[in-house]
Amino acid sequence: MYNLLKGKKGIIFGALDSNSIAWKVAERAHEEGAEFVLTNAPIGMRMGTINQLAEQTGSQVIPADATSMEDLQNLVDKSMEILGGKIDFVLHSIGMSVNVRKGNHYTDQNYDFTTKGWDVSAVSFHKVMNVLYNSNAMNEWGSIVALTYMAAQRVFPDYNDMADNKSYLESIARSFGYFFGRDQKVRVNTISQSPTATTAGQGVKGFDGFIRYAEEMSPLGNATALECADYTITMFSDLTKKVSLQNLFHDGGFSNMGISTKVMENFSGEY
Amino acid sequence: MYNLLKGKKGIIFGALDSNSIAWKVAERAHEEGAEFVLTNAPIGMRMGTINQLAEQTGSQVIPADATSMEDLQNLVDKSMEILGGKIDFVLHSIGMSVNVRKGNHYTDQNYDFTTKGWDVSAVSFHKVMNVLYNSNAMNEWGSIVALTYMAAQRVFPDYNDMADNKSYLESIARSFGYFFGRDQKVRVNTISQSPTATTAGQGVKGFDGFIRYAEEMSPLGNATALECADYTITMFSDLTKKVSLQNLFHDGGFSNMGISTKVMENFSGEY
Amino acid sequence: MYNLLKGKKGIIFGALDSNSIAWKVAERAHEEGAEFVLTNAPIGMRMGTINQLAEQTGSQVIPADATSMEDLQNLVDKSMEILGGKIDFVLHSIGMSVNVRKGNHYTDQNYDFTTKGWDVSAVSFHKVMNVLYNSNAMNEWGSIVALTYMAAQRVFPDYNDMADNKSYLESIARSFGYFFGRDQKVRVNTISQSPTATTAGQGVKGFDGFIRYAEEMSPLGNATALECADYTITMFSDLTKKVSLQNLFHDGGFSNMGISTKVMENFSGEY
Amino acid sequence: MYNLLKGKKGIIFGALDSNSIAWKVAERAHEEGAEFVLTNAPIGMRMGTINQLAEQTGSQVIPADATSMEDLQNLVDKSMEILGGKIDFVLHSIGMSVNVRKGNHYTDQNYDFTTKGWDVSAVSFHKVMNVLYNSNAMNEWGSIVALTYMAAQRVFPDYNDMADNKSYLESIARSFGYFFGRDQKVRVNTISQSPTATTAGQGVKGFDGFIRYAEEMSPLGNATALECADYTITMFSDLTKKVSLQNLFHDGGFSNMGISTKVMENFSGEY
Repeated sequence: MYNLLKGKKGIIFGALDSNSIAWKVAERAHEEGAEFVLTNAPIGMRMGTINQLAEQTGSQVIPADATSMEDLQNLVDKSMEILGGKIDFVLHSIGMSVNVRKGNHYTDQNYDFTTKGWDVSAVSFHKVMNVLYNSNAMNEWGSIVALTYMAAQRVFPDYNDMADNKSYLESIARSFGYFFGRDQKVRVNTISQSPTATTAGQGVKGFDGFIRYAEEMSPLGNATALECADYTITMFSDLTKKVSLQNLFHDGGFSNMGISTKVMENFSGEY
Repeated sequence: MYNLLKGKKGIIFGALDSNSIAWKVAERAHEEGAEFVLTNAPIGMRMGTINQLAEQTGSQVIPADATSMEDLQNLVDKSMEILGGKIDFVLHSIGMSVNVRKGNHYTDQNYDFTTKGWDVSAVSFHKVMNVLYNSNAMNEWGSIVALTYMAAQRVFPDYNDMADNKSYLESIARSFGYFFGRDQKVRVNTISQSPTATTAGQGVKGFDGFIRYAEEMSPLGNATALECADYTITMFSDLTKKVSLQNLFHDGGFSNMGISTKVMENFSGEY
Repeated sequence: MYNLLKGKKGIIFGALDSNSIAWKVAERAHEEGAEFVLTNAPIGMRMGTINQLAEQTGSQVIPADATSMEDLQNLVDKSMEILGGKIDFVLHSIGMSVNVRKGNHYTDQNYDFTTKGWDVSAVSFHKVMNVLYNSNAMNEWGSIVALTYMAAQRVFPDYNDMADNKSYLESIARSFGYFFGRDQKVRVNTISQSPTATTAGQGVKGFDGFIRYAEEMSPLGNATALECADYTITMFSDLTKKVSLQNLFHDGGFSNMGISTKVMENFSGEY
Repeated sequence: MYNLLKGKKGIIFGALDSNSIAWKVAERAHEEGAEFVLTNAPIGMRMGTINQLAEQTGSQVIPADATSMEDLQNLVDKSMEILGGKIDFVLHSIGMSVNVRKGNHYTDQNYDFTTKGWDVSAVSFHKVMNVLYNSNAMNEWGSIVALTYMAAQRVFPDYNDMADNKSYLESIARSFGYFFGRDQKVRVNTISQSPTATTAGQGVKGFDGFIRYAEEMSPLGNATALECADYTITMFSDLTKKVSLQNLFHDGGFSNMGISTKVMENFSGEY
């Protein structure tokens, strides 16, 4: 709509289906004039409908296990070939907790599952940047964004070990962002989004009640996946070149609320 | 009980009545072996029962309007005379919003009231430290503490302009704390306490419901005034010499909660 | 360049001269298709060259003392007349410390000056929003931004009482932002910008050395006034509707640095 | 000296030699009347002199690999036997990066080393609490503390992947602290200490220059290991029962500094 990403080339991780934030980012990036490669883990590709998105946006899909350096190197190399040059923007939207899937309580984890979830959800972000940085694959003033959640800072009991994974992810954004900025003029940020009814999000226990709580707490209500995509586009554009190492809350104001009048109404009256 | 403040001399602002946190701090400081001067605004002294506390703790009371440099200079000079030396610890527990008292909504303040509340609640802390610093009245490794509330960081709608005053107060702690530390080896911190049913706190609209919300949110429940006094004693002791410029949450864990299972129960079920 | 603000109407405070961030915001907003009213204090207008900016951007100038509710009401009323409707965006870029100007040290303030600086630099933001909110002058999904500085969170000794003023300002953004969001779907944020060589900034003691320190600390270097304007444009656009109550660092990454390799070089070697 | 821990029973991890913070904590806890078990990894025990500390404090040593659930279960069971009851306090002072030891740059990690360092430095804290919680081994109002470093929040380039590990550790403190508080009235906090010339700390590249930078930045100077031990004692005492889920900076004020006059002096003068 604004040509904000005209001529820009990107890689978008994690578009599973049309509920995915990454899916919306791809649609909006396409509308804003970008070209990009879509990627997902082989299993994510089987479960989802990424090929439909590829068709819709004129993109190619390159499967990659984001925990595999070999797959990631192949992805980056192929992407540069396909797009005809270096990369301007990258979206990391990957997260998965085996402990959550298996129903293990936070206080009683299976540590092999913990390690797997950490590798997929957090270390993968380091690996992606490792390949990009060491392949010198990013254009100057490029922008790398990972999606995260406020459980990295505060306790949301059902978020389980994903909270710790997101803390690690946000730390990677700062740590790697320093070197990427200093050496290659690339910025790295995380966007901390409202709880969103993606296919992944819906799996979390008590999700509906939690969505309502967040909605009532946020002065502007919860942010949708499409609104998150809009915001992400600004972070990929040339208008935000000096924003880096930040965790950016996109949540209708939730993160800075102590209590709202609406939430308070649930705590008044008789007991 | 532990002689943690044996031989230490202090000034305690804001003990109105036995519900006051400052009152509990005075009682605990006395138990821990400190000597101190009590002070309050003339109006606070008429409304409260500070003389009873003075008797109980063997202290003298020096009235002082904490917005008056003259009163504060007199207070500090007299305190050193009475206590026979420089000061080791100071508690600032002063806060008042005329807008709250008069029922003005945050979005429709009377700015003369705003200025008055800011002067009493926040600038008074600067003035106290100004007099102490420029009179060279603190012993090395002395400790200055002001009480604050988390509304300085996040929105609690009924807290009104006290939220902004507390932000200013916490900033003073950092700004003045730097110079006090660098030049006189004195530390300055704020303690951000759970909502507490003091005589002042009870005046806030919807306070009971809010207390229940905070209780259900905090893994350890709300902190009491006595527990706050215990914590304040540690900050006055020689065991915390290198803690400075900090805002210390004493709130049963509330400040780092996103949601608790108990609060969540209010948002589940049918709609 | 992108038509990001096409059809949007705004009010821009604080464009003194072509070094001002507000000046750059006006230029960029004009390029992006916005119409707006410029305003400054009468004294600022005499000292600066705002009329040139007005001509360049096809804008009208309405003088207003931002501490005067009467002036602000007139400004908002006239702006709606001139622009033919409600307001979509507002920039607050106002700050001034009389203590700094007069050379008073932070530990030895003149409290009349403190009050004046607080009123101009911080309370003015509350007054602006008070008028806008109570006049119902903002369009839904409008955006209000105030410029701030990181001294609100951490100690920069020469920033003096402006640090405390900026803390108060940022608290107003949260407090008023809650009501503005809840009731009128308007977002309120602050942008915390790198030290910038504006005419105002240059007055701060030791500013050159500090600029160099910040440059060496920030992985992407300091952000310029023009870059800040670009970023501000994104916050006024429809792409950031759910960002509210935030303090947004625009500083090349400075705010999340502990130390950089370049700064470290000043601390190595022989002693 | 104050009997602050009289009758309390604890477990102290990580006392390698007399430079260790954990060593100082053990000495101070002994002075304050506590009984405790010392533990370290088998390799740490061979390298260090923990038996001397055991003798000095009348403690027993139980070797445990803190990544082994079996070893930890044995440690907790034996400790309760030896001490004759449940545990009141636990210190986790464990950290190690294989990437740092092997000289791998942050941007070019060996991910097996990354995983090993994460397991030892961060997950071990989860495992310790897992065993304590599920064995119901803590007394009510017990206190668990882990040592951390500010690189968890801000970039210190040479801290390498320990920064990310410490972020994960601090997240565990919040996540597990919630359940430990809610279910067993146990508090969990991290103490974020000044850079300290422990045997471990000294291995970090450019450590001396960094120590000087931190010393010049902190208004009260860097905190020593002994001062950290004093502070830790307060966190184990009954005076801090309602402090939980916090990351507590013990750093002479460093964490809230933007720049100090002393650091500024390195950035003035001619260029």
